[in-house]
Amino acid sequence: MSANGVVERVAAGDVRAAARLMRDLDDGLPAARRHLQALFPRTGRAYVVGLTGAPGAGKSSLTDRLIAHYRKAGLTVGVVAVDPTSPFSGGAILGDRIRMQDHALDEGVFIRSMATRGNLGGLSRGTAEVVQVMDAMGKDVVIVETVGVGQDEIEVAQLAHTVVVVSVPGLGDDVQAIKAGVLEIADVFAVNKADREGADRTVRDLATMLELRKSAATREVLEHDDLHRIRRTSSTDPHDQGFWEPPIVKTVAVRDEGVGELVEAIARHRRHLDDTGERRTRDVARARAGFLALLREQLLAGALARLGAEGSHLDAIAARIAAREADPYALAEELAARLRR
Amino acid sequence: MSANGVVERVAAGDVRAAARLMRDLDDGLPAARRHLQALFPRTGRAYVVGLTGAPGAGKSSLTDRLIAHYRKAGLTVGVVAVDPTSPFSGGAILGDRIRMQDHALDEGVFIRSMATRGNLGGLSRGTAEVVQVMDAMGKDVVIVETVGVGQDEIEVAQLAHTVVVVSVPGLGDDVQAIKAGVLEIADVFAVNKADREGADRTVRDLATMLELRKSAATREVLEHDDLHRIRRTSSTDPHDQGFWEPPIVKTVAVRDEGVGELVEAIARHRRHLDDTGERRTRDVARARAGFLALLREQLLAGALARLGAEGSHLDAIAARIAAREADPYALAEELAARLRR
Repeated sequence: MSANGVVERVAAGDVRAAARLMRDLDDGLPAARRHLQALFPRTGRAYVVGLTGAPGAGKSSLTDRLIAHYRKAGLTVGVVAVDPTSPFSGGAILGDRIRMQDHALDEGVFIRSMATRGNLGGLSRGTAEVVQVMDAMGKDVVIVETVGVGQDEIEVAQLAHTVVVVSVPGLGDDVQAIKAGVLEIADVFAVNKADREGADRTVRDLATMLELRKSAATREVLEHDDLHRIRRTSSTDPHDQGFWEPPIVKTVAVRDEGVGELVEAIARHRRHLDDTGERRTRDVARARAGFLALLREQLLAGALARLGAEGSHLDAIAARIAAREADPYALAEELAARLRR
Repeated sequence: MSANGVVERVAAGDVRAAARLMRDLDDGLPAARRHLQALFPRTGRAYVVGLTGAPGAGKSSLTDRLIAHYRKAGLTVGVVAVDPTSPFSGGAILGDRIRMQDHALDEGVFIRSMATRGNLGGLSRGTAEVVQVMDAMGKDVVIVETVGVGQDEIEVAQLAHTVVVVSVPGLGDDVQAIKAGVLEIADVFAVNKADREGADRTVRDLATMLELRKSAATREVLEHDDLHRIRRTSSTDPHDQGFWEPPIVKTVAVRDEGVGELVEAIARHRRHLDDTGERRTRDVARARAGFLALLREQLLAGALARLGAEGSHLDAIAARIAAREADPYALAEELAARLRR
């Protein structure tokens, strides 16, 4: 099929063409990369919602219910499940298959799992690419479901306009403690399984943490610096119009309780981003990170090609470094300098 | 202090010099980088154990007990806690402070938390650097404690000689399902809190998964390819001498039960790596990944300096990309090509 054919079909929302393109991207086919490039001007319209939290928090059930709410509102939805425990990913080996299948025949819903192929690494670029394809397909909302704390969560914060952190009562103090780490990325908190004992305590704990943060009168914004490091860059007075106080919404996804409120909280955050100009700020930060990733990759590919042409082999270099016969710092500097000449 | 002073003191195991160096590395001071470079020839001796698993699995208690066992055997120990829920990291806001403090006065133990400074991103390089400093200090064993599934776990697999995946009964099916994702990186399984109901089921589930994998007669090894992607590279017959079947050890860390068995399982895996030559393979893979990370960084720094000298600003480029006025793929390619000329 011609490049144009693929691009046109994906842009027209063709599910098979999009799925094929995602597979080809995953396989690293250069043609797929060119198609993504051709689709780039058609991206930037989807609203990206990140959904993250500990395993067992019911993120997939919540995603399922969010899909239903958005569909009822006439919106098309893409879902990227980076979560290996998600039923989308076939991960719930011992668990029940939840209702996702309801959406399987709905053409307005496109679901892609990033965890089925045993490709544990490289989620970062892959996820961003899949979001781009769904965006180009014309999906109004793209939900990115990730599990855990750490890198994956940071990445979802880079990718999403609104990050929903899902908590659940009774997972123990350790899990509550995680929130200290995610406070900086949460735009909305959902306390799911809120019919369980301890739900009010979970809400109270979250509220306390938010109060502490507010009284510190600082608001942290994640941003990339040039060397791909995330750090705090700005602080804002909580009395400013620009200050967003993450709402805490109680939900019981399996009974569809509180999901309307969650949808409303996401919509309010979206309006906040628009009103304050922060949506543009986030889009620019994302563009910057994406460009730097591409640049890094291009530069490295060039450097490795040069090494190869010179008959140096990366494996041999690595073996010498491992044996402490070579200094990786000096080698990297020298090679980089040589490439600049 | 002269560079030599720092290097000599760290190499002599000086805790204050090492802590200072780690802080300076974290702050990105160029001098710190040069010290790390000077310490490089003194690294490569520590045995690195990764400890990973869901929040609430009791990883920190287990780490605490492992420290005690290694100390009793006369070994010095370094601990890097990348886990924001770890008491090492001051993360257990609501939880109890566990016994780690016992080790605070022990000069043979050096503990460093990577999660206290609000620096959510960049854990990858930072963690590898801290491990290197501990290695250069002469620590016999370095334990890297991480939480979650996803990127962080992948990174621990790249860093560690032996990866211990900690499970716990009763965290629900979702959590069990995670193991499908970590099967590839686990060298040893610990089922902690094994006095809880359901421990035997957890062990059985793990054993079943290992059996399924074994009957597929393939063994997956994680390795980097040139573009920093992790993938399966080799498969081995389970009847081969080179096949390692991850043992499953039941532990109750808070009562110090089963910890001796865990130490023994790690030791057996270590012997296995030595006997099969795989320790060297892992060390080379790690050297390769480290070198590529350094190279990528050098190249990017050079490219950004060039952009700046030309009066192009990354922020302006990002804004044009975000507005879909510029094509990031073409820009990255063009800049990389220009730098190679």
